[in-house]
Amino acid sequence: MKHITLLTVAIAALAGVVAITVPASLHADEAGAPVFVTKIPPGYRDWRLISVAHEEGNLNSFAAVLGNDIAIKAYREGKLPFPDGAIIAALHYGHVPSEENNKVFGRSQSFVAGPSTNIQFMVKDSTKYAATGGWGFATFIGGKSSDAPSMKSCFPCHNQIKARDLVFTRYAP
Amino acid sequence: MKHITLLTVAIAALAGVVAITVPASLHADEAGAPVFVTKIPPGYRDWRLISVAHEEGNLNSFAAVLGNDIAIKAYREGKLPFPDGAIIAALHYGHVPSEENNKVFGRSQSFVAGPSTNIQFMVKDSTKYAATGGWGFATFIGGKSSDAPSMKSCFPCHNQIKARDLVFTRYAP
Repeated sequence: MKHITLLTVAIAALAGVVAITVPASLHADEAGAPVFVTKIPPGYRDWRLISVAHEEGNLNSFAAVLGNDIAIKAYREGKLPFPDGAIIAALHYGHVPSEENNKVFGRSQSFVAGPSTNIQFMVKDSTKYAATGGWGFATFIGGKSSDAPSMKSCFPCHNQIKARDLVFTRYAP
Repeated sequence: MKHITLLTVAIAALAGVVAITVPASLHADEAGAPVFVTKIPPGYRDWRLISVAHEEGNLNSFAAVLGNDIAIKAYREGKLPFPDGAIIAALHYGHVPSEENNKVFGRSQSFVAGPSTNIQFMVKDSTKYAATGGWGFATFIGGKSSDAPSMKSCFPCHNQIKARDLVFTRYAP
């Protein structure tokens, strides 16, 4: 079960919408403070929409990407880097066929959000998370924060998209 | 061009997330009032998330389904039928591969929201829209309301899911 969970997290990290929890021990020398996010930001399910995303392959995920007020404002104004306080949430679900919809439509074409697979966050704090590009990363599965070893691959991946301040998701109109 | 537009609308209607604008003339006898929605509900882009959806085939659409406060409250409380005032919005985009994401991930797996294809609304008013199950339907393409002939198929399709008050989209956790 643990193996499956770690695989899920690793693939989720590859999805690149959000990612990684870096343990304090990894960056204690550089930052002198914890650089991981261990609590789910309150109220995230009421945040506004940034966009949607879908990953095929092993991940087979369906995401709604939401932002808090600071993140939405920055997106809408096209401001980079994101200001401190911005939080981006990726709500990941299974990408599952909807038999009830297909029955009505008369063909197999409809996919909907299945069970939640994880929720990922990027929290911007350029001081606290200086060692990871100013972003604190987090993955929660079933409400529990993922363990550090499974999260190591996320920051290097996000760091490849520096031109957009490490954020893959673009704002949908 | 018009042919393509109508096809898009017809297929979008089949997607079943929202649909149809019924012209006043169709139901003037029954309801004595217009049963179509001609104005985009203000502030819809700030509404909260209901769920995401994807239709394959000719439609190839990617949807974010949002609800106003009344709709979200009804969903969360599991109340059916939806109360008057509830509005559900389906923001449809193209389902397009993200080359920039795939480049980072090293494989072709990532799909994102492409250009907006249409925005559809269902507006609940059990008196005004009595002739169409209590729902006023609307499709807007490029900010313009679709013409009536292209919308006829929507209500009969939604009417097949009466057990959920004509609404296909389920609430995602």
